[in-house]
Amino acid sequence: MAAGKTDHALERLVFFSDAVFAIAITLLVIEIHVPELPYRASNAAYWQALAHLIPNFIGFAISFGVIGAFWSGHHRAFTLAGRYDGGILVWNTLLLGTIAFMPFVTAFMGRHYGAPVPTGLYWAWMLLIALLNLRVNSFATGPRMLGAAAGAAADVRRRSTSVLLAAATAFLVGLAVPVAAPAGMATIPLWMWLLGRLGRTAPI
Amino acid sequence: MAAGKTDHALERLVFFSDAVFAIAITLLVIEIHVPELPYRASNAAYWQALAHLIPNFIGFAISFGVIGAFWSGHHRAFTLAGRYDGGILVWNTLLLGTIAFMPFVTAFMGRHYGAPVPTGLYWAWMLLIALLNLRVNSFATGPRMLGAAAGAAADVRRRSTSVLLAAATAFLVGLAVPVAAPAGMATIPLWMWLLGRLGRTAPI
Amino acid sequence: MAAGKTDHALERLVFFSDAVFAIAITLLVIEIHVPELPYRASNAAYWQALAHLIPNFIGFAISFGVIGAFWSGHHRAFTLAGRYDGGILVWNTLLLGTIAFMPFVTAFMGRHYGAPVPTGLYWAWMLLIALLNLRVNSFATGPRMLGAAAGAAADVRRRSTSVLLAAATAFLVGLAVPVAAPAGMATIPLWMWLLGRLGRTAPI
Amino acid sequence: MAAGKTDHALERLVFFSDAVFAIAITLLVIEIHVPELPYRASNAAYWQALAHLIPNFIGFAISFGVIGAFWSGHHRAFTLAGRYDGGILVWNTLLLGTIAFMPFVTAFMGRHYGAPVPTGLYWAWMLLIALLNLRVNSFATGPRMLGAAAGAAADVRRRSTSVLLAAATAFLVGLAVPVAAPAGMATIPLWMWLLGRLGRTAPI
Repeated sequence: MAAGKTDHALERLVFFSDAVFAIAITLLVIEIHVPELPYRASNAAYWQALAHLIPNFIGFAISFGVIGAFWSGHHRAFTLAGRYDGGILVWNTLLLGTIAFMPFVTAFMGRHYGAPVPTGLYWAWMLLIALLNLRVNSFATGPRMLGAAAGAAADVRRRSTSVLLAAATAFLVGLAVPVAAPAGMATIPLWMWLLGRLGRTAPI
Repeated sequence: MAAGKTDHALERLVFFSDAVFAIAITLLVIEIHVPELPYRASNAAYWQALAHLIPNFIGFAISFGVIGAFWSGHHRAFTLAGRYDGGILVWNTLLLGTIAFMPFVTAFMGRHYGAPVPTGLYWAWMLLIALLNLRVNSFATGPRMLGAAAGAAADVRRRSTSVLLAAATAFLVGLAVPVAAPAGMATIPLWMWLLGRLGRTAPI
Repeated sequence: MAAGKTDHALERLVFFSDAVFAIAITLLVIEIHVPELPYRASNAAYWQALAHLIPNFIGFAISFGVIGAFWSGHHRAFTLAGRYDGGILVWNTLLLGTIAFMPFVTAFMGRHYGAPVPTGLYWAWMLLIALLNLRVNSFATGPRMLGAAAGAAADVRRRSTSVLLAAATAFLVGLAVPVAAPAGMATIPLWMWLLGRLGRTAPI
Repeated sequence: MAAGKTDHALERLVFFSDAVFAIAITLLVIEIHVPELPYRASNAAYWQALAHLIPNFIGFAISFGVIGAFWSGHHRAFTLAGRYDGGILVWNTLLLGTIAFMPFVTAFMGRHYGAPVPTGLYWAWMLLIALLNLRVNSFATGPRMLGAAAGAAADVRRRSTSVLLAAATAFLVGLAVPVAAPAGMATIPLWMWLLGRLGRTAPI
């Protein structure tokens, strides 16, 4: 569009995205409220108060891992990109918006652990992120932005597709057994292997 | 003023501004409070609790898009700037201050959706940001800072002016029908086209 | 101490400091809580609710300006520094700690506007920041770190000393008339002029 | 794994880690809630309200120093690293996760100062961070990532081990006398000296 759209524009976009990922991942903790206890409460009371927060701790851990993984994938893709293309801006902003919203869905699930609606919302949201992630990473490693290394680009796309399929699995498992949903994310290696066999892409 | 005011000073200013934009955009979410529900509430109760938050979700989405757009414009302008000038510091700090304040006006509007005062405040604030944005971007692409590319600079100014006129439209629409105000922002392409015809600037 | 302590260490320290400044400045807003109002409250009630928050808005504006100014001074000093020296680490961490604490003293003053203790604490805190600021900036432009430009370094020290004297003025004014304290910061140009006359440093 | 894994990948990892450290250190303050006091409360009431927050202030100060110190050690180690190795990603993410969780354990200890469970949890958490810190820093200065400077690398490892031993001391002291636990961290120089004598590594 305007002049000056060089690799510098790409660098700034990556920097801004990195900052949003880092802030969202660190903000997760402020939704876990410190338990209130009477002065000189027993040790057992303290342990019990912490035990009540276990769902919040689990939610924190899952979301931390998930945002970290999406950040890692985002970066792997943008390392391969060789030039900036304005078309990625809308998709990347949508992806960052869904990432920035993670603290809410995480806290909602943590506060009402095992309830179908919060769990369903959480994993449906993950599915949405995985979709946008696939779109952004495919764009960054597609013909309009790719620098070199077509084999590595295929790997990025296969990886992003596996995450999407695993999120769909987690969402479906969550519909049946809410607390078992995280197990769905463990199917990522399976999908990567399957897509590798199907696509007959060169091993990297 | 002091020595050592080179392009490095420009880079640091951009970095600091980027960080404030990224933090403000990510902080929007923490004003959306997780609904409290009794243990084993029905699914319908969960959906209803989420439905009550729809205004907050809309506010989050609008503000995320708006801050993202202002960030993008800020960057387009500073890419064109070739040298640092201390005169921009006050205007840029004022702009960052209004951006950092967005989570408050967003939460105020979301909590009291459709009420004239919060909606009016939100869009008046947007107008203020658009004014400061025009000032900062004109400065960054003006004679004291511009590196090259005068045609692209005219485009940045036309774009910033369009955003200002659209924010004014949104503010006026909001005075009459609060919930319809966001539609005013959709007039940006119209203003760009109009200003392009008026200014007879070369198409870019 | 260890090997690899090059200019790179300086760059990282500046980056980390920038990030803490940017986060602290943006976190100021979350201490301003959105007013609760009954559904379909009158416009007058909304305006009144906002009027009650004016002290918070003033506190936000002052602290935003103050952190922004200290950030700007920090950067001016570190631009002049030519090499890293481990001795600055403790002072810089102390300075960042007092900056990161600003949201608390700001909210405390805003919530209890005009009360002597919160106002006194606020301006005493400012004094502490100004002291640490003078220490850090003198170190960064002192013999162990300075790159070149001794004249500009004298300017940085004079500027930091002026801020300290202005903060002391604000603190003393605040002891007598709490709400008038901010006026003390307006004496910065006066102190700079006075120190310039006393020191007979070359005009920059 | 994929192509493009150069020093650039290392730089991005350091940037992301820096951002998480900076955000976590700055978020500590928002867990300290501004005391509520009636309008026109006496100065004595204000001082008393602040006195009640002293444990929170102490917690803020300790955690600020601790996160600052871990950040500093993290950076010292990564300055020595010469090339990126994907194996560090999981360990580094775990370390960042425990750092990002610090605001919770800090607030929990501050709110219930002197109680054994919150204090024990705090120092056990510190122990966990010190363990992960040792793992990450040993990896970054180990054969798979080290650039040069083997002597400096030994120093990094000795330093990280000392922090771990000091955290263990603090944890054990905290089991007996909760409020005396911070003194355990003061044993760091002792451990460094001891490890230096044992390892007979060259003085640096």
